[in-house]
Amino acid sequence: MRYTIGVDFGTLSARALVLDIESGREVAVAARDYAHGVMDRELPGGIPLGPDWALQQPADYLQTMEGAVGEALRLSAIDPQQVIGLGIDFTACTMLPTLSDGTPLCWQEGWRDHPHAYVKLWKHHAASRHAARLNQLARERGEGWLARYGGAISSEWMFAKIYQIADEAPEVYRAAERFIEAGDWVIWQLTGRETRSACQAGYKAIWSADEGYPSEAFFAALHPLMEHVIQDKMCGPILPLGDCAGGLTAAFAKKLGLREGTPVAVSNVDAHVTVPAAGLTGAGDMLMIMGTSTCHMLVGEEEKPVPGICGVVRGGILPGLPGYEAGQSCVGDHFDWVSKSLVPPQYHHQAQEKGITLQQLLTEKAARLLPGQSGLLALDWWNGNRSVLVDVDLTGLILGMTLATKAEDIYRAIIEATAYGTRMIVETFQQNGVPVKRLVAAGGIAEKNALAMQIYADVMNMPIYLAGSPQAPARGAAMFGAVAAGQAAGGFSDIVLAAEKLGRIKEKIYTPVPEHVAVYDKLYREYAALHDTFGRGGNHCMKRLKALRAQAIDRANGMAQP
Amino acid sequence: MRYTIGVDFGTLSARALVLDIESGREVAVAARDYAHGVMDRELPGGIPLGPDWALQQPADYLQTMEGAVGEALRLSAIDPQQVIGLGIDFTACTMLPTLSDGTPLCWQEGWRDHPHAYVKLWKHHAASRHAARLNQLARERGEGWLARYGGAISSEWMFAKIYQIADEAPEVYRAAERFIEAGDWVIWQLTGRETRSACQAGYKAIWSADEGYPSEAFFAALHPLMEHVIQDKMCGPILPLGDCAGGLTAAFAKKLGLREGTPVAVSNVDAHVTVPAAGLTGAGDMLMIMGTSTCHMLVGEEEKPVPGICGVVRGGILPGLPGYEAGQSCVGDHFDWVSKSLVPPQYHHQAQEKGITLQQLLTEKAARLLPGQSGLLALDWWNGNRSVLVDVDLTGLILGMTLATKAEDIYRAIIEATAYGTRMIVETFQQNGVPVKRLVAAGGIAEKNALAMQIYADVMNMPIYLAGSPQAPARGAAMFGAVAAGQAAGGFSDIVLAAEKLGRIKEKIYTPVPEHVAVYDKLYREYAALHDTFGRGGNHCMKRLKALRAQAIDRANGMAQP
Repeated sequence: MRYTIGVDFGTLSARALVLDIESGREVAVAARDYAHGVMDRELPGGIPLGPDWALQQPADYLQTMEGAVGEALRLSAIDPQQVIGLGIDFTACTMLPTLSDGTPLCWQEGWRDHPHAYVKLWKHHAASRHAARLNQLARERGEGWLARYGGAISSEWMFAKIYQIADEAPEVYRAAERFIEAGDWVIWQLTGRETRSACQAGYKAIWSADEGYPSEAFFAALHPLMEHVIQDKMCGPILPLGDCAGGLTAAFAKKLGLREGTPVAVSNVDAHVTVPAAGLTGAGDMLMIMGTSTCHMLVGEEEKPVPGICGVVRGGILPGLPGYEAGQSCVGDHFDWVSKSLVPPQYHHQAQEKGITLQQLLTEKAARLLPGQSGLLALDWWNGNRSVLVDVDLTGLILGMTLATKAEDIYRAIIEATAYGTRMIVETFQQNGVPVKRLVAAGGIAEKNALAMQIYADVMNMPIYLAGSPQAPARGAAMFGAVAAGQAAGGFSDIVLAAEKLGRIKEKIYTPVPEHVAVYDKLYREYAALHDTFGRGGNHCMKRLKALRAQAIDRANGMAQP
Repeated sequence: MRYTIGVDFGTLSARALVLDIESGREVAVAARDYAHGVMDRELPGGIPLGPDWALQQPADYLQTMEGAVGEALRLSAIDPQQVIGLGIDFTACTMLPTLSDGTPLCWQEGWRDHPHAYVKLWKHHAASRHAARLNQLARERGEGWLARYGGAISSEWMFAKIYQIADEAPEVYRAAERFIEAGDWVIWQLTGRETRSACQAGYKAIWSADEGYPSEAFFAALHPLMEHVIQDKMCGPILPLGDCAGGLTAAFAKKLGLREGTPVAVSNVDAHVTVPAAGLTGAGDMLMIMGTSTCHMLVGEEEKPVPGICGVVRGGILPGLPGYEAGQSCVGDHFDWVSKSLVPPQYHHQAQEKGITLQQLLTEKAARLLPGQSGLLALDWWNGNRSVLVDVDLTGLILGMTLATKAEDIYRAIIEATAYGTRMIVETFQQNGVPVKRLVAAGGIAEKNALAMQIYADVMNMPIYLAGSPQAPARGAAMFGAVAAGQAAGGFSDIVLAAEKLGRIKEKIYTPVPEHVAVYDKLYREYAALHDTFGRGGNHCMKRLKALRAQAIDRANGMAQP
């Protein structure tokens, strides 16, 4: 019997999964919440945080990992000696400053009350002006790497966050001997060895195997402190996915209840690790991880510039092949917004009487509508547009209301809008020579919202497959643990072989309905026209309204103050 | 002591007001609901009605008038001998087929179960394809009168309704010896004399003092049965506003408790009669009657063609001057839609706790926002656009939503949108050489919604005055009763003199706030751009979505049937 363990580090909790790598069975799963959750108002000591900040405490990662792995092992009742490998996946870019021995700066006396000393979570959005400046500089200098990221670096990524630190807290920048992804930091703790994941570096830190990082000249132009940031503060080898980062230290072997020297895989990203978990091994397979937002993972044959995607990294998803990432910044969050903000009491009562949730009731009612019957069309930009417009200043639109329009009409129109957004991304890939041949969905919406999945199939005119495991990221991490162990130890020589044996797709497939496809083709053309009008400069009114809103809020705050 | 009585016939009820024409005091008011209300599903005998039908029973007008006048007289405790005149106002075009003696066709044995034999209420919307055909024919023939109506005749008006009868029920057309406005019919009942109001004929029946009705050739081309419709079925003199239509018959004098021969004024329209009630007597005064929809009454110096208005009639509002009518088909209905369709339970609870209505709560919350602070912009087309686009197939739009958008943001944005719609109408008048110098509001919204009125003042950058009486239409009707009585009998020689003495404006004035005006100027420019994109052919997607919706509903009905 051979097992591996995968640990999935999410935004609020960590989950450990014990995988039987012979049968593919998920033997046990256990989860633990981070004690400090997301710190977005103040530090534990009461120091207030600014708007759009989102921090974490790195100790939470280690404590939840110990708790979850320990419980999963107990539940599985297996012999820990049979665990041949360990893998993790993490949110990214989630980064922290540390000393050269890996000690987080926020654990050091003197830095505990300094916000910039903590982990900046992926959704820390306080570096947006730093990202804007970084992008402007890159365009001015004609930096070639910009094309690999669809023309813009996100404010969520590594160098926007480092630049914010250098700019706002040079003392933290100076004291930080390393800036590192939290996933790489956990691997460092587990193995005692400082390594970096090529996946995380490629997607989030402007690195590529061929070209490395941006030049010192670029960093010097960005901020004088940052000239030698790579050489001084981003050390350690950059290892491809599937590599073994090292063996488990004696100390961590004891804490986790595993054997010392257990091979630990290079850190991976939550979305990316799900691709092999769903058994996707070839060019043209697109995985959509659908939750509050959606990540699109697509493996190609050749690396091509595609405008408006998040990034392309050779070997970033599967070895040797270019892995593309795109995204929709608001999907399930839209559905939540409708149900929380726009649904009158009689719906709540009805849901209660039926013993179902409000969203289930809305889904039931929306499912009774035919395509086109709501009369509505929406642009799915309540939280801006990530791909393909890369514009956080876009906002939502609904059109077609009459006095007969009801909440379920809006609910369905918003689901449809997110499907059109996906079609826009897929068509952009296709038009730029990167084929999309198969669609596989994972995540909470894929698991729970059959109406949404059928609408996606109808809008895309493609069948939608579903990842087999509801714990797909942890399963994928465990599979990378088996690759880190290697064939000789009973694991796998590469992730593609592991995916062929252990990847899982559900039997349920959502198949397009031809009459629906015909209507959605027409509606998509309407969506595309509005998308281009409001998103590509026909009418910039969304940005102007947003600016007027910011001014009004400033005035309101000014009036409220003495 | 001299009094007159005004009776205001609304959509659901009639109100009688006793006016002291020396002091201007409203001595008593009484109202009665129509027993049959609006028949929009079936006739009293159970015969079903099609979609968009809206009928009334003419007996209801006489019964409510008797009840309301009787009660108002009792309440006033005046001597009925001191009532020197009587006036009425009516919704229009609200029309019915009668015999040549005025007997409604629907009262005749053999016609009681025929929908086309009943009163077609102003909001009977089942003649829209007839209106479209009428407009197309008028354009093809180059009919000069089309320009007086902003380029299009409404499906609500007299000849669209008659044409529907001729087309769908030729037997009713043949049996009808008259087609007459319900207001004129009530005057006929009161006086025993068949007359027609120049105001109603001018605005609703394509008549003008200079050119008369459209030609027989036009009517023959529209429908063979209709060639002689004017000569055969629209008899009786067309009298200007303020004229005496006749004296009260002995029978009605008894029923109403008034003296026989009491002068009865020519019938008037509810919106138009409100102008003198608010004391407006000059060119450039615009009265906005704001309720579920808004009517704009504007008196000009010269008759000019203004695209997209409802109509211009010389003497249609005040004697000798061109009276312009424009309209917004959905105003208060928008606010109701938001509060009924889009407001989650916590708002309902909060309103209950505070002991206020939901709309009052929404208004409180929306009033705390500064202009621009919602970040939203809407097009106020939930029920199409009457002026200046004259297009029932336009639909609503909201733009600018984020995950932070709340019900009060939408509520405020929709109020603002109706204000922008008013500004579009006012600017269209100004641009076509018809100045708007003063704005006066009347109706439920003017009376009750201070937030809306302040927003209108800020958007228009003009002070908004308010009509003095909450019963302004009935007051206006009573004033016309005083003009019908004439100066010799203690009344007035014309309505301008009456308006100068008896017209009332409230002390409260809504004054523009300069900082708000500056922001609304910017927002109005955004509105105007979207208005033209979606309303003037930049993108016809609203019409296409509406067509897809109709097809989907047809399919859904087909699927639902066996």
